[in-house]
Amino acid sequence: MIACAARLELLAVPGVPLVGPGADLPAILAHALSSGGIRLAKGDVLVVSSKLVSRAEGRFVELPKVVPSPRALDLALRVGKDARLVELILRESSAVSRATRGVLVARHRLGFIVANAGIDASNAVPPGSAADSGPWALLLPEAPDASAAAIRARLELESRTSVGVVVSDSFGRPFRLGTVGAAIGVSGLPPLWDRRGEPDLFGRLLEQTVTALGDQVAAAADLVAGQAAEGRPLVLVRGLTFDPSEQGAQSLTRRPEEDLYA
Amino acid sequence: MIACAARLELLAVPGVPLVGPGADLPAILAHALSSGGIRLAKGDVLVVSSKLVSRAEGRFVELPKVVPSPRALDLALRVGKDARLVELILRESSAVSRATRGVLVARHRLGFIVANAGIDASNAVPPGSAADSGPWALLLPEAPDASAAAIRARLELESRTSVGVVVSDSFGRPFRLGTVGAAIGVSGLPPLWDRRGEPDLFGRLLEQTVTALGDQVAAAADLVAGQAAEGRPLVLVRGLTFDPSEQGAQSLTRRPEEDLYA
Repeated sequence: MIACAARLELLAVPGVPLVGPGADLPAILAHALSSGGIRLAKGDVLVVSSKLVSRAEGRFVELPKVVPSPRALDLALRVGKDARLVELILRESSAVSRATRGVLVARHRLGFIVANAGIDASNAVPPGSAADSGPWALLLPEAPDASAAAIRARLELESRTSVGVVVSDSFGRPFRLGTVGAAIGVSGLPPLWDRRGEPDLFGRLLEQTVTALGDQVAAAADLVAGQAAEGRPLVLVRGLTFDPSEQGAQSLTRRPEEDLYA
Repeated sequence: MIACAARLELLAVPGVPLVGPGADLPAILAHALSSGGIRLAKGDVLVVSSKLVSRAEGRFVELPKVVPSPRALDLALRVGKDARLVELILRESSAVSRATRGVLVARHRLGFIVANAGIDASNAVPPGSAADSGPWALLLPEAPDASAAAIRARLELESRTSVGVVVSDSFGRPFRLGTVGAAIGVSGLPPLWDRRGEPDLFGRLLEQTVTALGDQVAAAADLVAGQAAEGRPLVLVRGLTFDPSEQGAQSLTRRPEEDLYA
């Protein structure tokens, strides 16, 4: 059972450092919460930026060390992108969804469709790298559902209550402008909330109301997370009620055979 | 200037009645807020369900009175939907985006692409209709930006501060499962928040960060709004900071020539 919240609170958790490869992210997040005087309650959801998870996993790639394949060189010429970045996009993807001038949309190996395979090409430099290194790209986490589960396990151990964890990224949309937060890793929280079968106000059955709970939580958290100078990679969402779930973010992804726009 | 909120609060406003055609919605919403003891503050955003706006505008259509065109009859046969509903979808749309078994996705006359032209076919009955009437369909509001502006004007008049108003609907997505809240009417709040040009943590320029603020606010509000027995069609979002904007929800919509999946 999930009940809608009548009141929801979102809080950027302060004190989360800019982690580097090898960081024990679950411990670091647990520490930020306790340092901030935040005691988790049942049903709290923690939304963690995918970039933070990627940094801890050391998903940095130094672009000059990437050797583009012939296919990447061809595609790079066609879309007008750095061939080394295109090579990384292809390595991270199972299929190209759309390729046109300035745009390369791919089906990520994790199942979802996303521009540039979700690679952050803003040159986020790994700590301790040489001054003349880079530019760098940052790949999405290796297994975001597992990362979410590891964070959840640690937080549940310390708080002795059940919580949810979402690893979020910002996605563009094919039909709408601007990015929105999307859940690429989920643990504890049902990614989809199936409201079909609940009576509506007149006691009839709702026709089509499966809500993308994970994505909506990620979108809400993005309102407080920021991506720029603020740097708030951990957001607490308090006020949802849900039964613990073991479904991952894959359940939010349409399978290729369900893709109306393939 | 928009600053991310470090803390955001969402509250379902109690006491909003199930309005019918001709209701003075701005006055009704203002009354619900004051009855609930809620005093609006600068930067508050009110998210109003499109269904509530449609009800007030009398956008009910009694299906048995709809005469399907030959084109609607053909299309209905192909996709397996009620021909009268298909007729309404075509009337509300400028183009069909995808039509396949059980699915009819259209470009709505308001510019966005949405399943079934956003028509609610769950038989929401207009108040005072005969017991043997219907079934009924409920179309999207006539001009949701104008509806949002009218609500905003009334709330700003009473509160003497600047607020934002979003008229929201639940949209499916072509590549992901589950619905999310989307902004189909916006007033006061910038629908898109252009973060390009802000320095990132290392003082470099962010590459691509135009956030769909309106949609993220709608998605967040949907977490507390519910659609079923709870019926919470008005949500207050408190904690955002933004300069007043006169941009409407159209700015969230990709134009047909920008549609990579046309």
